[in-house]
Amino acid sequence: MDGRDYFQRYLPGDVCFGCGESNLQGLRIKSYWQDGESVCVWQPSLHHQGWPGVLCGGIIATLIDCHCVGTAIATALRMEGRALGSWPHYRFATGSLSVRYLLPTPVDHPIVLVAGVTEIHKQRKFMLRCDVSADGVKTAEGDVIAVLVYRSDKPTEERVTLG
Amino acid sequence: MDGRDYFQRYLPGDVCFGCGESNLQGLRIKSYWQDGESVCVWQPSLHHQGWPGVLCGGIIATLIDCHCVGTAIATALRMEGRALGSWPHYRFATGSLSVRYLLPTPVDHPIVLVAGVTEIHKQRKFMLRCDVSADGVKTAEGDVIAVLVYRSDKPTEERVTLG
Repeated sequence: MDGRDYFQRYLPGDVCFGCGESNLQGLRIKSYWQDGESVCVWQPSLHHQGWPGVLCGGIIATLIDCHCVGTAIATALRMEGRALGSWPHYRFATGSLSVRYLLPTPVDHPIVLVAGVTEIHKQRKFMLRCDVSADGVKTAEGDVIAVLVYRSDKPTEERVTLG
Repeated sequence: MDGRDYFQRYLPGDVCFGCGESNLQGLRIKSYWQDGESVCVWQPSLHHQGWPGVLCGGIIATLIDCHCVGTAIATALRMEGRALGSWPHYRFATGSLSVRYLLPTPVDHPIVLVAGVTEIHKQRKFMLRCDVSADGVKTAEGDVIAVLVYRSDKPTEERVTLG
């Protein structure tokens, strides 16, 4: 990693196949803010193929899902002027996921995901859009509905305003 | 496996993370006909979790995608009265995938997927629906559009009528 403050660093104990840092058999994605957008760059391995040379569609779906859920958390914190990792913690669950596969996604280039929240309903239902590209070509796009399902009770004395 | 004639046995050289038999780091799903329905039963491992005790949404998406693509192949062959593995071979690519997560899916029970083709457009665009359940409870459902993109040229002298 390049030292950026990625969202998944602040999900302690996260076991998730897509984003759990400690899940050594998982994808261990890292998402971060870059020029106001939520970005994830991830390098596939050969066992992530679908067809030879092409990334598995299910892995693409996993990347989109986990990057969007991370983006929902980071966006909720940012809207409150709070830093990543500040209390209370939020957790989102995926309500739905939709992926359109536009072109084969190569496995021999880093996969770039750029996501953002497009709408928020009743302060807890976040609609997100995510574009997937490799080698400068958009190959897939996805929509995720992420629902805020957990808000920790710890007081907010650690509140920090984002720079 | 219980000896049933599963679809993925007839995808030689398949490297896919979801359905490639030889991909030892993949999910290695097995889909088969059971009472006219296409069924897959798959046992998660702990590294497939999303949250503790709950199957990762991206893994669920992968299972739905790969089981539906296998079902599309098997359905196309069955419609032609051909056996699994008979020539010419067909390959389908996923055009789109949509998943609705209804309840948390536990990781400590086998996951059961039941899929079927609901519509076919222009003989190559197959629409599929898939239900996901665990411990007798439906936890997710998905829709897949699978597109026939490859038809091998080998002659059909091995044509066999399904029993």
